Formats: sequence, C-alpha cells, structure tokens
Amino acid sequence: MTLRIAVDAMGGDHAPSHAVEGAVRAAREDGIHVVLVGREDAIKAELRRLNANDPLVDVVHAEDVVGMHEPAVLSLRRKKRSSIRIAANLVKAGEADAFVSAGNTGAIMANLKVTLGLLEGVSRPALAAVLPSVKAQSVWLDVGANVDTRPSHLVQFAIMGWLYSRRILGVENPRVGILSIGEEEGKGNETTREVIRRLRETTKEINLIGNVEGRDIFSGRADVIVCDGFIGNVTLKAIEAVTETVGVFLRQEIERNWRSRLGAMLMAGAFKRFKRRVSYEEFGGVPLLGMNAAAIICHGHSSPRAIQTAVRVARDYVENRVNDRIRTELARVAAAMDASSGEQP
Amino acid sequence: MTLRIAVDAMGGDHAPSHAVEGAVRAAREDGIHVVLVGREDAIKAELRRLNANDPLVDVVHAEDVVGMHEPAVLSLRRKKRSSIRIAANLVKAGEADAFVSAGNTGAIMANLKVTLGLLEGVSRPALAAVLPSVKAQSVWLDVGANVDTRPSHLVQFAIMGWLYSRRILGVENPRVGILSIGEEEGKGNETTREVIRRLRETTKEINLIGNVEGRDIFSGRADVIVCDGFIGNVTLKAIEAVTETVGVFLRQEIERNWRSRLGAMLMAGAFKRFKRRVSYEEFGGVPLLGMNAAAIICHGHSSPRAIQTAVRVARDYVENRVNDRIRTELARVAAAMDASSGEQP
Repeated sequence: MTLRIAVDAMGGDHAPSHAVEGAVRAAREDGIHVVLVGREDAIKAELRRLNANDPLVDVVHAEDVVGMHEPAVLSLRRKKRSSIRIAANLVKAGEADAFVSAGNTGAIMANLKVTLGLLEGVSRPALAAVLPSVKAQSVWLDVGANVDTRPSHLVQFAIMGWLYSRRILGVENPRVGILSIGEEEGKGNETTREVIRRLRETTKEINLIGNVEGRDIFSGRADVIVCDGFIGNVTLKAIEAVTETVGVFLRQEIERNWRSRLGAMLMAGAFKRFKRRVSYEEFGGVPLLGMNAAAIICHGHSSPRAIQTAVRVARDYVENRVNDRIRTELARVAAAMDASSGEQP
Repeated sequence: MTLRIAVDAMGGDHAPSHAVEGAVRAAREDGIHVVLVGREDAIKAELRRLNANDPLVDVVHAEDVVGMHEPAVLSLRRKKRSSIRIAANLVKAGEADAFVSAGNTGAIMANLKVTLGLLEGVSRPALAAVLPSVKAQSVWLDVGANVDTRPSHLVQFAIMGWLYSRRILGVENPRVGILSIGEEEGKGNETTREVIRRLRETTKEINLIGNVEGRDIFSGRADVIVCDGFIGNVTLKAIEAVTETVGVFLRQEIERNWRSRLGAMLMAGAFKRFKRRVSYEEFGGVPLLGMNAAAIICHGHSSPRAIQTAVRVARDYVENRVNDRIRTELARVAAAMDASSGEQP
C-alpha cells in the first residue's frame, strides 16, 4: 500500500490555509498521499480556493480545534475530537503512516504520548531541531520536550540523533557532541561527564567527539548536538530572539540617514534571501524522536512551503525505517548497559 | 585616600597595549587613579608611546604572564608572580580598591579565590554579563563561573544581581526573572521552581517576576536574569556565535550582485554603528560578583575603550559599596531561611 501522511489542518497561526496549501503541494509536486484532518467545511473551502481535486488528497473531519496557547492537559481532557487527536488515531489505526502538525507543541506531545506511546526502549521523547550550520545541516536535541533529564535519557537522545543524522540528513559518519562548557574531556558538569562515560562504554559505532560548546551549534563541528530539553529550549529561544534583535538594531541604524536608507533599498534582495536562509520555517519542522510513530512538528507560523517540506521529511522518515533502527540500537545499548553497572534507564 | 584601581596590563589578546591605553584614558578623562601591573619595561614602553607621564598612573612590576589558554590550576601553582596574582595581592593589602583584567577568566577566578576569598555569606561567585536589551541594560548571571549549582546558590545570584542592577546600572526597582522554559508559574524544572519558592519566602523587597524565557535575555522584560553557570555559558556562547553567523550569511548574500554590493557600501556606516552597539567589548567587562573585592573581567579582545569603561565600572562598584550591601542583604536572607526550612546554603 502506498504511504499516507496525516496532516493536522487546524494547527498553526495560519490554519487551515497554510497547512492545506502545503499538503496539496506535497501531493502535486512530490506525489505524496496526504490526509488532511480538521473541520471539513474549512478544509474544503481552502481546497476549492486552490482548485484542488487531487486524488492524493483525502479529508478526515475533526470538530475540535486546540488553541495555540491552550494548556496541554486541558486539550487532552476536553478535546477528544481534536484534529491532533484524530490524526494521531489515524496513525495508530494504520490508516496513516506519519503525523505532521504546526499546532500547539505541548498538546501534540501529550496527545501522541497517550495515543501512540513511546517507542520500545525509549524513556523520554526528544524534540530534534535541524539547523543550518556553516557547512551542512546538524541535528540538535532535545530542544524542549523534557525538563528534568537523567544521563540515561541523554544517552538515548544521542543514539536517536545519530540515527536521524545518518538516515534522514544523509551524513555518513555523524560526529556526536555533548553540549557543555569547554571542549576538553573532563570539563562540563556531573551529567555531561556521566553521559560521555556511558556512551564510550556502550557504543562503539557512534563517532563521539566529546564536549561541544554553545558556539558549535552553528560551527559545523558536530552533526549531532545533545543536551537536556531545559538547556535546549532556553538556548533555542535566545537564538531566535538574537536574530530578531539584530534585525531591529540594524533597522534603527539604517533609519539614521539617506545614504543608509538608499543602501538598504539596494540591499533589499540580499536581506530577503538572508532571512529565508536563517528562517526556521524553511527547515520543515522538528521531528519528535522516540514516539511510536513518525511525528514532525512545525513552527506555529510555518509557510505552506515549510509544511510541504515537513511532509517530505515525514515520508523519508517512514521509508528509511528510522524508528525500527532506533529500537534495534537502543536494545543493543541496553544490553551493553546491563552488562556494565550504573543507573537503569 | 583617593580610590585606586589595579589594572592587569598583561591580560588580553592585545596586551599590554590596549590595557595600558585604556587605563591611561581612565586616568586622563575620568580622573581615576590606576595601577598598571605587569612587566615594567613593556608597560613603560607603552606609556612612552602614549606620552603618558600622568601622576594618576602607577606601575607595579610582575614578571610572570598567564597565557590566555593556560589551565587555571597550572597558573596558580607555577606563576605566583603573575600580573593577575600581584594585582590581586595589591587589593588584598589595601593598596588598590578594585581589580580589572582582560586576561584568562579561569586563572583570574582561581587567583582571586585564593588571594581574596569569597564575600561573607556567598557560597559561589557568579559572572554577571551586562547586556543591551531593546530598552535598557540588563544583568544576566551566572554566565560561567560555576557548573553544578544548587538552588541556594541561585538565590544568592538573584540577590547579587538585583543589587548590581540598582547600584551600578541605576535601575530603581529591578525586575528579577529566573531563566526557564515557559513563563507561567509552575513551569520550569525542579531547580527553578525551588528558587522561586525560596525567593518568595525570604525576600520581600525583590521584585521577582518569576520565570523568563531565553527570548527575554534581550526583550527587556527583566532587569536581572538568573540561571546556573552551565546554562548561562552555553547560551552566551551560542548567542555570540549566532551574531557572527548572521554576519557571515549576510556577507555571502551581499556578494551576489552589484546592487547589493553598492547598497552595502552605502550602508557601511550603519553596519559599523550596529556592530559597535551589539559588541560585547563596549560594555566594559563582566563583574565577578561574590568575591571579597570589586573585580571586573573584560573580554580577551577588549579595545582600550572597553578597558576604560571597565575601570569606571570598578570605581562605581567601590563607591557604591556594592559588596557591603550584598553582605548585609545575604545575612538578612540567611536569617530568614534559617527561620523557614530547607537546604542550607
């Protein structure tokens, strides 16, 4: 049977229009079978706008919509017919092979956990941001799925990120770094030292380069950057803010005289290309690794193109059997850990 | 007796020239008495270059120089006549009132700890970065003095940062935020929740606004941002790297066609002003709070102007008796904590 991707049509700041348009593009341009989940009338209105009558686009109705800032627990309890939940149910029932949403991240994680559960051998899921470094794409996890993390969880994140880098980003021998302070072995805090010790003991295949620093998130020194979700989320948000602040400061400086203003006009194209390049949206979403399904979460203000990219990533994820590989590798490491001593995962 | 600031002439990538020039400017323009510590011949050569024969500039010889990447422990053991150590000894002996250096941060912290010790009531010192937010200057600590931090340490950081903001940055009622994920009360991890609970219980004066997020480091939502040194250092380095990466990406975009290149030429002034504004160097160094002395650490590639600013900040620190106030406030909070329950600092 051909592969089908469930797309939450009601998620994101521009729902349903961006989600529907992105899904339609994935169907038309990439030949991917998509299932749009959400309010049928709203989705159909969008499809008419796009003159979409494609055989590769299905619609499944869901009456509830989870707000972008609604507490996850409330959405779980009160919105059992939400587009998020119904899309997850489709995956569970085998009627779709993967899940894509630009909706409320907390609600998505809670609903997927309840509906699909975690992958065998995984104790915590991890949000993996895919970043443009100076050289290639790197994957950075966890950027916010967990707050209190033990060393055993970080070991799992390292393994999941390594497999994602190999299988989805196509890096042959991904270099794995633990986000820490100072590059030297022995630097860092208790947790990072313990994680490095365990990875060295239990995994021979992984190309562990040891500690990496905050600056290495963009330097291309590592293909996989591992940290707990608290640090990952704080740092990710700081990075987003600094990019915006740079823009504000630059605009203020440009307003000062006519030379700068004229210069800025001439440079408008370069600015636009630059913004597109650093834009989160163009990278097509963040995989939620460790769920018992392929799940890609997109930024709330994703463009149609970002949704389309996310659908493609979801397809690649399924076709490359990333979850099977994660399961196998974690079982191998768990056996090796049983053989050595230490805290159980 | 007039106030005297000990300046490590041998610290920084451009030592001794930038340090000497910065100190001389502070003497000439701000009327501050400075004591330059380092190799006498090198310092005197710089002074001749500057035609400096100022009565407010003293020189104290120190034969050893600590390299910028030398391990702190080694410098402690092998370089007992380093400019860092001798400058610290001057402060200890009462021959100088404050310490300024653009040298090796690890070596400075180790030497100050050994020579001057911690302030009464402080368990850990904290590096406090002073940042330009959209509205005003905010202070962010700890950005790297400590790796494994307990809630009681973060409570002390909050108090020290609050006093610094009031007394040095002139904020009347500084808003204190704990760096966390999600703004809502109850979000965050075990540590941040515990810190907020303790601050609420023991300090009535402090305007605690609760959790702030990574984006708030620049938003101006808080005047004081508190986190542990591990997260602070990772995030600070990521921010520095992103600013540089933005520059690289923009330059690549600009090179693409003549319009952009011409535009960039016209905008050169704006770029320069912008860079100055976001530049770390212009903020005149990072106070090391909690030491039994006023100590300002400057960035390794500080300009003479950055050194001058740091000398001014050191003077303000002493004149405002920031350390006396920290001591008093911490004693009050310790008494309040004794009265309630919980881990001892």
